[in-house]
Parts: sequence; C-alpha cells; structure tokens
Amino acid sequence: MTQIFIIGTGLIGGSFALDIKKLNPNATIYGIDNNEAHLDEAIELGIIDEKATLKDLKRAELVILAIPVDATLKVLPEVLNHIADEAVVFDAGSTKEDICAIVKNHPKRRNYLAAHPIAGTEYSGPSAAITGLYENKTNIICEVEETAFKLQEKVLKLFSDLGMRIRYMNPKAHDKHIAYVSHLSHISSFMLGKTVIEKEKNERDIFDMAGSGFESTVRLAKSSPAMWTPIFQQNKTNVIETLDEYINNLKHFKKLMEQENFGAVYKEMETTNHIKDILNGIK
Amino acid sequence: MTQIFIIGTGLIGGSFALDIKKLNPNATIYGIDNNEAHLDEAIELGIIDEKATLKDLKRAELVILAIPVDATLKVLPEVLNHIADEAVVFDAGSTKEDICAIVKNHPKRRNYLAAHPIAGTEYSGPSAAITGLYENKTNIICEVEETAFKLQEKVLKLFSDLGMRIRYMNPKAHDKHIAYVSHLSHISSFMLGKTVIEKEKNERDIFDMAGSGFESTVRLAKSSPAMWTPIFQQNKTNVIETLDEYINNLKHFKKLMEQENFGAVYKEMETTNHIKDILNGIK
Repeated sequence: MTQIFIIGTGLIGGSFALDIKKLNPNATIYGIDNNEAHLDEAIELGIIDEKATLKDLKRAELVILAIPVDATLKVLPEVLNHIADEAVVFDAGSTKEDICAIVKNHPKRRNYLAAHPIAGTEYSGPSAAITGLYENKTNIICEVEETAFKLQEKVLKLFSDLGMRIRYMNPKAHDKHIAYVSHLSHISSFMLGKTVIEKEKNERDIFDMAGSGFESTVRLAKSSPAMWTPIFQQNKTNVIETLDEYINNLKHFKKLMEQENFGAVYKEMETTNHIKDILNGIK
Repeated sequence: MTQIFIIGTGLIGGSFALDIKKLNPNATIYGIDNNEAHLDEAIELGIIDEKATLKDLKRAELVILAIPVDATLKVLPEVLNHIADEAVVFDAGSTKEDICAIVKNHPKRRNYLAAHPIAGTEYSGPSAAITGLYENKTNIICEVEETAFKLQEKVLKLFSDLGMRIRYMNPKAHDKHIAYVSHLSHISSFMLGKTVIEKEKNERDIFDMAGSGFESTVRLAKSSPAMWTPIFQQNKTNVIETLDEYINNLKHFKKLMEQENFGAVYKEMETTNHIKDILNGIK
C-alpha cells in the first residue's frame, strides 16, 4: 500500500502516519483535516507528504479515520462513497456501537474495519504525534466478519507490523467494557481536578503541595474536550452506569469513615490492592 | 551528624537512609522497626548499618520517624523521652494536627521538627527505598517556631542537601490542603479500582482493554492500607469534606449527561483543562 490517506492529522492519525512512513518509506501520506493550520503543521513536522480532500480518496489504498467520534458518524459514510472497490478504511474511535450502526447498510460496508487502538496520551494535535505509539498496545476490532477478507488481511498485517495485539469483540461489549476501563477514568480524573481547583483558589498551594500521586491521578484531566464530549454522548448509557457504581462506592467509603469503621476502610483498600496483579499483566 | 537512627525502614525511612549515607559516608545508620524481617532486608540491601532499639536512642544525633501516623502518635513521645538534649527528631507523616498536638506539652518538644516530605511511590517496604526520592520535592514544615533554632538549622541543612524545597504551614492548614491534593486522590483511585474490579469479574477483559490512562489513574490504588487507614482516620473531617465535594461534582456531571446537556459537559472539561498550567508548575 503506497497511497495512504489520514483523515484527522492529530495525535492518533499523525502517529499512524509516522510509523507507516517508517515501515514503508515509499508510501505517500496524504492528510485531510478541516483545520488548515493542523495540515500545515503536519507537513512541517514531516507527518504527511501532501494535503488532500475527500475527492482525492478515489486513489486511496488505505484510509485512516482519526477524528472525534461525532464527526466519524458523518464522515465515514462519505469516505466509503468516495473510495475505490479495493480500498480499505479503518477508524480509531473510542466508541463502536453507533459507528458500526451508521454504516451497517452502506454498499461499501465490506471496505470498512471497525478498530479501536487502545493508545494515546493526554495531548492532542499534530505536535502530539509520536513514533512507536502503537507498539505493544491492544487494538480492538469489532464485527471483523463484516469486512472483506482480503481487506482485513491487509490492515491486520499493518497492525501486526506496528507491534499491536489484536482482540475481537462485538461493538456492544466493546462500548460496555471500555466505559469502565477508559471513559470512567477520564471523568474521575476531570472531576478530581475540578474539585481541587475549586477549593484551592490560591493555585500556589496546589503547586507546592501536589506530589507525583496527584499528578498521575489528574493526568487525564488534560485531555481534549472536543474528543471526549462526543465519546460520552455516544456511550451515554454505559458511562452513566459506571458513574452510578463509582459514586456508590465513594459514598460507601465515606459512610464507613463517618461511622469510624476504619477496619472496613482498611479492607476496602486491601481488596483493591489486587489491582497490582492486574496491572502487572498490562505491562 | 554521624549517629543516625531511622525508625521505620520502609520506602520513606529507607530512602532517607540511602541519601544520607551518600551525603555522609561516615555516618552510621541504625534501623529500628517492629518488623524483624524488614530490618534484615534493610541490612541486606545496604540501607542500614545496624539494628537498634529505642533504648539505643540516647546516642542518637538525628532520629527520622517514618512509620504509619497512628504509630507515630505512640512512638514519638517515647522517642523524645529517650533522646539526648542535643538530638533532633523529625517525622514524615501525611497528617500534622494530631501529631503536633500529642507532643505539644512534651518537655522535649523543642527537639522535634514536624515535617511532611511530599514524596513517595505506590510501593512500600525496604525494597521500595530508592536514592534521590527527595530531590526537587516539597517538604512542608509545621510549627517551625516550636523547634529549637540550632536543631532546626541542622535538619533544614539536611533537607537542603537532599535538594528539597521548604514550605512553612500551620498543622491545621496543612491537613486541610493535603486532604485535597493527596488524600482525596488516593480514595478516588482506590474506588476507581474497586468499581472496575467489581464489574469486570473476568480479569482478562481489564487486562486487554486497559491502557496507560487507566493505569495512571488507578496507580495509587496499589498503596499500602496500613499506611493510609490511619491517615484517613486522623484527617477524617477534612477528607469527608473533600469526598462530599468530589461526589457532588460527579453527580453534577452525571446529571448533565442524563439531561443530554453536552455543551455543559464540554465546558466542565474545558475549564478543568486549566490543570495543565498548574501541573506544569509542579515539574
């Protein structure tokens, strides 16, 4: 594949571009972005070779869609309208149910692979793109059977070359599980940041007293609202369920403290320490 | 100072021992710990030179108390009973009000400096001790005026040699602020870990889908319950206040989602993004 189109030249799309160029120096990387400044920046940083528009997609071999999930709902069907029969498109959205539904009956459904590479940082835009972002990361593929076999093969080969692990899941299960391990973390972090900022109007106090623990817990509160708002919107039902459970667990912990039941407080933490073993598995 | 006693040979005490030995190779580091296995491990790892008991404290020049804050309430007055008039003791506890109160009228109050080095990791025990832990970290000193001037000077010189920034605060303000920037982060992280573990009984799913964002947000849920339970107990009132505010912020976010007011959801996150600038200040 030498004609590669990246729609959305930010952290996710840009990082794919950098790695693909490294794997295949003969490839030409075209960038499509509704933010002209991002396109200029992406060219300057050597992320893309040329600017393009949707009309140029007819000569694409591979299209990577890495834009907010609300925009994906509009752009993905259009992309499928433009591409040739042999071309393949994958997206990188953090929700899968609505996206798979929107193209369910599209005549080119078999040219699309629904993907969610579990990779990223709290930064965004072309300058956030880095090489090696996808190495040793998990990539969740949904409804793989809906993609033409030959096209699956091409994209899975690329994921394998990038060093990714593949897991197959249906969109419903994906959205439910990811609400717990990703979407809820972002809200817990944003609300922690909000709580501390509200209280500590004098920022100097936060600055001086906050250690690496606080920093790690609020890291995700730096994330892009433009990316995360549509994710919460599309995954509303699951996210609200996780929030309910999280709030109930916090209330229970507070009640134990109010009752001075510190034996139970100890047990709550001891049981959760088990997360160590789970996280060791991630590394 | 060459006669240094470390009470509690874990992460905090052990890391002080390693750095002091590096600064002053002539110093003898004595370890006191109610866990005999930790003392053996600390000797084996070269953290301490010799085992000791409270009775040996009469020849101490410097005593570092790095044990859980409930134990500190019992051990600190005893330590002051044992030491010589020229000796100085500091603690490293994450609460300061109860600890300062317990020695308020002790005849050797002026031999004690109340300190809280904002440093640590989620690990514990002698094997968690590392060199350089305190470099560029903040150390909050409370009631500095209650410590004899000459003894203050000695300890502050040590903190300066270790590369620490000093901030002075009263114990009440310390406990209130630290509840926000440290104690609440730990609870938010523990409860996030609990929520996800409860839901995802099949750990394989967490393992596969969790990315670096989740890992960073639940990192503190690996922390030691033996250290944290007494902290929450001593700082109960402040911690409950922070939990109330945190829970209210989460409920508000949930309500906005239920009302489909995603414009306001965006604004919540956008405002909190300001945490970036605050965290940049920490680095």
